[in-house]
Amino acid sequence: MNKRIIISTIGKIIFLEALLMIPALLISLICRDGDASGFLVTVILAGAVGIGLMSVRHSAQKMSSRDGYFIVASAWIIISLIGALPLYLGGGFPSYWNALFEIVSGFTTTGASVLSKPEELGRGVLFWRSFTHWIGGMGVLVFLMMVMPMENDNSMHLVRAEVPGPTAGKLVPRMRTTSFILYGIYGGMTLILVALLCLFGMRPFDSFCIAFGTAGTGGFAVSSAGIAGYNSLAIEIILGVFMLLFGVNFSVYHLILLRKFRDAFSMDEVKIYFAIVAVSTAAIAGNIMNYAGGFGKALRQSFFQVSSIITTTGFATADFEQWPEFSKHLLVLLMVIGACAGSTGGGMKVSRVLILVKSFVAEIKQIINPKEMIAVRVNGKPVDKKTLSSTRIYAAAYMLLICAFTLAVSMDGLDFTTNFTAVLSCFNNIGPGLNLVGPMSNFSVYSDWAQAILSIAMLTGRLEIFPMFLLFAKSAHDR
Amino acid sequence: MNKRIIISTIGKIIFLEALLMIPALLISLICRDGDASGFLVTVILAGAVGIGLMSVRHSAQKMSSRDGYFIVASAWIIISLIGALPLYLGGGFPSYWNALFEIVSGFTTTGASVLSKPEELGRGVLFWRSFTHWIGGMGVLVFLMMVMPMENDNSMHLVRAEVPGPTAGKLVPRMRTTSFILYGIYGGMTLILVALLCLFGMRPFDSFCIAFGTAGTGGFAVSSAGIAGYNSLAIEIILGVFMLLFGVNFSVYHLILLRKFRDAFSMDEVKIYFAIVAVSTAAIAGNIMNYAGGFGKALRQSFFQVSSIITTTGFATADFEQWPEFSKHLLVLLMVIGACAGSTGGGMKVSRVLILVKSFVAEIKQIINPKEMIAVRVNGKPVDKKTLSSTRIYAAAYMLLICAFTLAVSMDGLDFTTNFTAVLSCFNNIGPGLNLVGPMSNFSVYSDWAQAILSIAMLTGRLEIFPMFLLFAKSAHDR
Repeated sequence: MNKRIIISTIGKIIFLEALLMIPALLISLICRDGDASGFLVTVILAGAVGIGLMSVRHSAQKMSSRDGYFIVASAWIIISLIGALPLYLGGGFPSYWNALFEIVSGFTTTGASVLSKPEELGRGVLFWRSFTHWIGGMGVLVFLMMVMPMENDNSMHLVRAEVPGPTAGKLVPRMRTTSFILYGIYGGMTLILVALLCLFGMRPFDSFCIAFGTAGTGGFAVSSAGIAGYNSLAIEIILGVFMLLFGVNFSVYHLILLRKFRDAFSMDEVKIYFAIVAVSTAAIAGNIMNYAGGFGKALRQSFFQVSSIITTTGFATADFEQWPEFSKHLLVLLMVIGACAGSTGGGMKVSRVLILVKSFVAEIKQIINPKEMIAVRVNGKPVDKKTLSSTRIYAAAYMLLICAFTLAVSMDGLDFTTNFTAVLSCFNNIGPGLNLVGPMSNFSVYSDWAQAILSIAMLTGRLEIFPMFLLFAKSAHDR
Repeated sequence: MNKRIIISTIGKIIFLEALLMIPALLISLICRDGDASGFLVTVILAGAVGIGLMSVRHSAQKMSSRDGYFIVASAWIIISLIGALPLYLGGGFPSYWNALFEIVSGFTTTGASVLSKPEELGRGVLFWRSFTHWIGGMGVLVFLMMVMPMENDNSMHLVRAEVPGPTAGKLVPRMRTTSFILYGIYGGMTLILVALLCLFGMRPFDSFCIAFGTAGTGGFAVSSAGIAGYNSLAIEIILGVFMLLFGVNFSVYHLILLRKFRDAFSMDEVKIYFAIVAVSTAAIAGNIMNYAGGFGKALRQSFFQVSSIITTTGFATADFEQWPEFSKHLLVLLMVIGACAGSTGGGMKVSRVLILVKSFVAEIKQIINPKEMIAVRVNGKPVDKKTLSSTRIYAAAYMLLICAFTLAVSMDGLDFTTNFTAVLSCFNNIGPGLNLVGPMSNFSVYSDWAQAILSIAMLTGRLEIFPMFLLFAKSAHDR
């Protein structure tokens, strides 16, 4: 490993985090919410450490693919450790570990909280919490490579480790341009959402926080009433639609900007994503009709919740814990599937599920026609062997890890449904689960130990398993 | 497809089933339990249909791999449909569908029952129910190829479709000899078990039924008190040990018979299987100590339940529904893992889990050392690509099907833990689950519709997914 380039890049990340914390510091100062000193200490500390590490000289400019994974995994852990400081120093959290859970939940865009009343927090902390969703959604290293120049191959290694999906997509040959385009689309859509929310009566502060949570598919609300508290059909529809839009593969928007409409609307993954949303919304609406009191209300509840869960955002306008079992089971299935690859959403990703289903069908066809070569085709093209193999290994690792994490948190003595859905929810970066971690509850039911396990689950899920394990793997060639 | 050879082979299977039903018919006659007429009707009917179909002439002697899958899948469905008749005609079951669930549960060695008091059934039906475990355990087609001569290649196709595990093992080049050896070991071990159970005070009738349930890793008891009803430490230990032995890859016993001890004791899968049992037994014993009242009692309960669940037998001597959550969660994990390949046990199989874990580790090593070729090695040899790919696809299909079946049975409105563990239990051919389908409960909580779904889950799990789907697949070359 190239230790110097690793240290220097992590230094840049820490410095960047200090910069990104300044808006929250300013809000805290303006609102005099008492958290400003915590922010100030953290900004100064992180700024100093960041500048110190950045100045480590590295002669070799090249990083290996492994260095990329290592940087991404350690960067995400470090920004979480630092990002939790102002929350803890502000005094709104019982312990540093609770604050850490909350901020890991922020960066990983999970949105699971240990607080029952977020409105008791200061404005600065509330803003920072939601802003971490926005930073984590598109990826902090993608942000870094936009603001600081980096060697193109190195960027590619980082993108491959940080951006979700079975294949890391570069929109254009230069990674820096790609990150500009991605953050351009992301920022633009976020601003449109803020404007719409303000227009329909949401306070500007709330609009920004909720827009960050929507764009990053995070799901932190600013009050315990959540989105239901705004009591506005317009806001629900806007958020429902925008959650879905942020769950779409961003290359679609790039193609639309390039006016390649046919390519944009012909991606298998995106078509299936919208088909799953449509079918699930209809099925749940039918199922909850009696509970909701009429088809119209049922459809409103169903659309918002389906959109929120499949995109792994986690906002709720209804206590789906009270829904009939079929609807709850369907939501659990949507949790596993997740959004599109290359979006800000989490989960297994529609494209992976698609590859797995098609692999299964291809295997059956292969048995029937043993002499032919049956390929797995997506978007009309055969999927390459490397992607096939790593997708299947990913699915197996996913299953093994869900089992392992569920067993680990069961030490707390909560029931199986709670533990299993809490792990699914954290690993897939959603937010709420079922039973004791349902949409109207929070994760304070878990001990510090279990919260630490769930924090690891959130990071492992957000970074799609491999980077976290590479942290602990040793190479034969290590210096 | 070669329709004539398919029909003729299925005819043989039906005729064989009629023969295998005769002992139950005799017991029913001797005990005058009133079920004899039901057995007689079924034996005559099945015998006649079987002979009729067997006599279909087929000029082509060769069957394709696909024909093999087709025969196995349809044979298992047909023997279940026929095998349920005497249960239904006897009047002990509310509907034919309940009887079908019970007998599918028998043949697939699941052991899930819809009865709360099996002791109310006649002796003949009780015997038949348990005997189906024994037939299904080693495989009905493996039995067929022992008693009726068959072309060697054809046998191989059937074995590949019926015998569990990632690789179909032939012990010796001739499949007929292989099936003789397998059933020889199986029958011999079963008789030893019967003798031991009688020796330690179990009634001969019970001894046979319980031995069938143990050997096939089925789990039907003959009374509602189950194994706990015998109230004997010796019997618990004997059954605990024999369940484990029947969960071992049978090629180990063949190697032992050939005095190849070193080979027998060096199989990775078997070593890991026993390691999992040891660790789980210790972990649960420690966890339930307070509940059981002392370490000795805890160890006794823990060993029996771990052995019963990992081998997918499903006998219970303790109501593990009452255990602390950690122990229950660990049992759920053992349900997924299951026994060794090439045993009578179900589940994912230890060898598959081993291949999946090693694939994951190899993938990580591959990222670290991109220029080397990292192989997945089991028993010191690299696993071939075909097995790797089909194991990974199997795992993905496993996950997708567990999701689909759970969603389907959720229509009944039961809770998530019940539905999820019921599906796991049926698909992995175990028997009990958690909550409403716990070890002291039964599957009558489900509607006929859900029982039908669970019956399909049992068959799909027992035949390891692919044969059931091939039933509905069409080939381009179909005549």
